[in-house]
Amino acid sequence: MNLTPFFDYIKQYVELTSEEQSLLLSKIKTRKYLKGQFVIQNGDVCRHENFVLSGCLKTFYIDNEGQEHIVMFAIENWWTADLGSFITQTPADLNIQCLENSELVQIHYDDLQQLYLKIPKLERFFRIIIQKAFVAVQKRVINNFSLPASDRYLQFRDQYPKIEQRVPQYMIASYLGITKEFLSKIRSQLISQKK
Amino acid sequence: MNLTPFFDYIKQYVELTSEEQSLLLSKIKTRKYLKGQFVIQNGDVCRHENFVLSGCLKTFYIDNEGQEHIVMFAIENWWTADLGSFITQTPADLNIQCLENSELVQIHYDDLQQLYLKIPKLERFFRIIIQKAFVAVQKRVINNFSLPASDRYLQFRDQYPKIEQRVPQYMIASYLGITKEFLSKIRSQLISQKK
Repeated sequence: MNLTPFFDYIKQYVELTSEEQSLLLSKIKTRKYLKGQFVIQNGDVCRHENFVLSGCLKTFYIDNEGQEHIVMFAIENWWTADLGSFITQTPADLNIQCLENSELVQIHYDDLQQLYLKIPKLERFFRIIIQKAFVAVQKRVINNFSLPASDRYLQFRDQYPKIEQRVPQYMIASYLGITKEFLSKIRSQLISQKK
Repeated sequence: MNLTPFFDYIKQYVELTSEEQSLLLSKIKTRKYLKGQFVIQNGDVCRHENFVLSGCLKTFYIDNEGQEHIVMFAIENWWTADLGSFITQTPADLNIQCLENSELVQIHYDDLQQLYLKIPKLERFFRIIIQKAFVAVQKRVINNFSLPASDRYLQFRDQYPKIEQRVPQYMIASYLGITKEFLSKIRSQLISQKK
């Protein structure tokens, strides 16, 4: 598998020496998943941080009524994990499933703890990308209670234009917290406004 | 002001040498705010990370209709900032206002960037606390779309028991994304269930 996108991604934030790069390389694994397979299932402990080399995945939560709620999507150059499970090494609440055949770079929890000690720049790297992820999810909380569904859909399309062409509409509805019928109505209204 | 809680808090995550502690001490400031005063107002750039030594603050967003939505509360031993504004040094979307007279430890953005270089352990410290904050806010997204308001209220009471006694009910309603009349109804039902 071509790991260039992985190292290029890290390079955006920290400059690793060739020794550090070799050490990191020795601690990561790549893994292929088929469409439909799970990277993590609720109840299991999330052992890996995952970087997407190719493919598309959804992270979702099943509520007490058995309904699925999509928490996030991940495509190329995104990280995905049940972070709550990963940092505490306790059973996951979330599921991560492949919507396409996917190739991931995986870093095991134990290896990452060692890597933090040996390559302190990785502390910086993960500090920065988690700050960005925090801001994104906080923005989602704010949008959810301050914007009508149609505006949230437009924001979703702006922020994740590549995802919309790759995942079914009912999953986008789930991500937005609305029914697929309501999403369909919003889309029809937007099309008729364009005419 | 007594800075022991601040250094004790850091000690939970990383062990600083006395030199590092002195350097950090030389870069932080403490500031007192009166009830009603703002630590950050939307449109201004958030220049500081803030650690609460005493007091209680709310972070809120004003939507296009002028309605206030509470994003989070902060009390003793919490951090508060508009992180999106802070990390990009661009104007804030959020407001942070004191609900009580409050004492904060403030670290200026420029000083923090220097501190990261001189005390790499602080990268680790902030990486860990931001991971925890990410998990908390992601859990809020999940709860918002998977739990009824009454359960979210109970969770709020469990998670933040000390805050509920310090902030008015209408702010808790705002945090939960419900009207204060609906929160009042939920509370009455819970009281009658207890009888």
